[in-house]
Amino acid sequence: MNDIICAVSTPPGMGAIAVIRLSGEGSIAVTDTLFVSPSGKKLAGAKANTVLFGQIVFNNEVTDEVLVTVFRAPHSFTGEESVEISCHGSVYIQQKIVEALIARGVRLAQPGEFTRRAFGNGKFDLSQAEAVADLIASASQASHRVAMNQMRGGFAGKLTELRDKLLQFVSLVELELDFPEEDVEFANRQKLYELTEEIEREIDKLARSFQLGNAIKNGIPVAIIGETNAGKSTLLNLLLNEEKAIVSDIHGTTRDVIEDTVNISGVSFRFIDTAGIRHTTDTIETMGIERTFQKIGQASIVLWMIDLTTPVEKIESLAESIVPKLADKHVLLLFNKADLLPDAERVEKEHILPELKAERLFISAKKQQNTDVLQQLLLKAAAIPQIGEHDVIVTNLRHYEALVKALEAVRRVKEGLEIGISSDFISQDIRECMFYLGEITGQISTDEILGNIFSKFCIGK
Amino acid sequence: MNDIICAVSTPPGMGAIAVIRLSGEGSIAVTDTLFVSPSGKKLAGAKANTVLFGQIVFNNEVTDEVLVTVFRAPHSFTGEESVEISCHGSVYIQQKIVEALIARGVRLAQPGEFTRRAFGNGKFDLSQAEAVADLIASASQASHRVAMNQMRGGFAGKLTELRDKLLQFVSLVELELDFPEEDVEFANRQKLYELTEEIEREIDKLARSFQLGNAIKNGIPVAIIGETNAGKSTLLNLLLNEEKAIVSDIHGTTRDVIEDTVNISGVSFRFIDTAGIRHTTDTIETMGIERTFQKIGQASIVLWMIDLTTPVEKIESLAESIVPKLADKHVLLLFNKADLLPDAERVEKEHILPELKAERLFISAKKQQNTDVLQQLLLKAAAIPQIGEHDVIVTNLRHYEALVKALEAVRRVKEGLEIGISSDFISQDIRECMFYLGEITGQISTDEILGNIFSKFCIGK
Repeated sequence: MNDIICAVSTPPGMGAIAVIRLSGEGSIAVTDTLFVSPSGKKLAGAKANTVLFGQIVFNNEVTDEVLVTVFRAPHSFTGEESVEISCHGSVYIQQKIVEALIARGVRLAQPGEFTRRAFGNGKFDLSQAEAVADLIASASQASHRVAMNQMRGGFAGKLTELRDKLLQFVSLVELELDFPEEDVEFANRQKLYELTEEIEREIDKLARSFQLGNAIKNGIPVAIIGETNAGKSTLLNLLLNEEKAIVSDIHGTTRDVIEDTVNISGVSFRFIDTAGIRHTTDTIETMGIERTFQKIGQASIVLWMIDLTTPVEKIESLAESIVPKLADKHVLLLFNKADLLPDAERVEKEHILPELKAERLFISAKKQQNTDVLQQLLLKAAAIPQIGEHDVIVTNLRHYEALVKALEAVRRVKEGLEIGISSDFISQDIRECMFYLGEITGQISTDEILGNIFSKFCIGK
Repeated sequence: MNDIICAVSTPPGMGAIAVIRLSGEGSIAVTDTLFVSPSGKKLAGAKANTVLFGQIVFNNEVTDEVLVTVFRAPHSFTGEESVEISCHGSVYIQQKIVEALIARGVRLAQPGEFTRRAFGNGKFDLSQAEAVADLIASASQASHRVAMNQMRGGFAGKLTELRDKLLQFVSLVELELDFPEEDVEFANRQKLYELTEEIEREIDKLARSFQLGNAIKNGIPVAIIGETNAGKSTLLNLLLNEEKAIVSDIHGTTRDVIEDTVNISGVSFRFIDTAGIRHTTDTIETMGIERTFQKIGQASIVLWMIDLTTPVEKIESLAESIVPKLADKHVLLLFNKADLLPDAERVEKEHILPELKAERLFISAKKQQNTDVLQQLLLKAAAIPQIGEHDVIVTNLRHYEALVKALEAVRRVKEGLEIGISSDFISQDIRECMFYLGEITGQISTDEILGNIFSKFCIGK
């Protein structure tokens, strides 16, 4: 039987209220040893899913006035008997109540342990459990929608369906192995081949969705490059501040969460800071260029900021080394400080680097001119398709890796069928494909895999 | 009738769960427009103090799976119909749910607005409402206990009792004014005088407790002074890190809350950083000394760190200007880097500055030698008495100021009685004293006072 665990489940720090969660058989009884209600009611007598008002009293001292919600197995998040204590959001009080529970023999939960128990009790499959973490971390409409779809089971449904079809065939193939002397084929090779083709298509589509899924989850990587005085920081701060302003309308700053990620119309862009490239005498500093090359490599969109007041020759000299690195990137040439230059000169400069395939835009980061157009260009460059409620998109590296291995295995099955390989090899490859699909949904799991997955959760979830 | 307000009540940022609170008649109906339960149950049909599981669906999109708790007037924190939505702790989800509620006509709550409504509905008096904010901010056992005592009414009880006694007398005194021609005394002057003496004693005691209360609430101010290389930062980090380590055992870092405040055995010490005093040639830099003097002025305890490897003459030259400023301070002389010096030299140095009344201690901040003894000395110097469950201690500047004014007024009453002043003046002074006492409990309040008090609360409380 699982022991009783507890943790503060609300964000760390001070707020109006905080919630401490307990799970495990005996959670209600142990909370009752600390709970005193004005009417003398005990939690043990409370109906499931009801809230009682009272005090937490520990060592003869009132720690806080609280609301306690009682959940009874299996009707709780974890599927176990559970309690939620809603207390005043002082760090001291949160700490004291957890200490009091620990003094009563309750154990502090490991990261993700509540969700792991829910998984263990069959409340959802592994990909759904992982979606819970993604849902909590989601910072844009797209990442939220993808995580929500996954949590609601869209992902697992698809994979379980494929795995079930394989299971039917592998049983027939393995039945053939029981009759080695006879040349029987219980499994229709033609139909099996058609199934492998279908599975290959489906897994390939899922695996391919990972690039999009990753961009949605972690933000589309955008490198801002340019010389030190081109205005990169001003632009970045402008984009970041606008976002932060929106967020803090609702509830304080979320700097920790969004870092240098900007949410534009529901799409996350992850800005990769590059040290400005400096000219020493007339040669471009080698170190700066090297570092910038690396950053460009990580990006799918490159914002190249050019100070319009820089002489054309200087820009062209810089371009010589940079342009070859931009081949497969979506490039936006931003002519900054547009407010400082007369129109005639602007037009002249617009056509520099004619060999470079790039959108060209005049902006003034300082005066915030045309930054709205820039946002539209970024959205266009990101080319994130509209995600429907039932679209299945892979965002998790672990899933992607398992899909790639499943894909390799199913391709071996297909090739084996093409060259008429023996049933035992085919059976082995089908089993391998099923193994990797099962790993995603958690039908196949080890303590190590589970430990690895849930350790990335926050405490209290 | 109050409109419906909502706010995220849990700390800002990301966590496993977050709670969004609504209050006002119609809260349940408005949440029902967004709430879809698997069984089709609506919140409207739910019993008070019960929890329902379901989804928040807005614009045909599932925003989250949530638990919703229903409270019915007057049995809620505010005394109004209320709803608490417990959602996944993603910043995006918190924001989306608040946006959905706002789209349904709910208003974002002002800071402290829930507590203000609770006050308005007679759930508690003003000093109790203010104690809620103190309770949330409390970071030590002592400040927690003082706030809890105040929230549970100890404070208001005392003041209401005094005010009631005054009310009896002022009625009698004012009755005398109705008979100006006759020389009647309905109010027994001797008894009134005794009452004023009792009230003076009580208010004086309360007002005096403010110094302690302030130290408990904001931490006992400790200045660490000394030369730049004396080891001040090492010591401060040592003390701070120990505290932070304790806090993060439970739940992440709380740097925002504790700042440079250290909790030693339940007592908060607020360390005032001083720029190190630098010797330029042989004269002490004037600027540094001036700044240090200011810091000493704010402190009640001074830790003077002396690098044991510094020549005695140098210390004595520094002492000339510093010692006169330490007159009413509790001084601890800390001889640092004790590990670098042989015992003989240590004994010699221990007796420098014989005219200075101070405890003397050898430590090594770097090697953490004797820092435990230092903590004990700090606790002794703080001299915070043990606070019982029923001790009434004033921690709030607003209360203190009102008490001082009430004290002035009651003293005028007393003096008036001594010199036999006319009833109308006495009545006026009694009324003034009652006014200030009533201001603390909220029996007397204006929108301006209330606005001022509640604006200091966090949003969601």
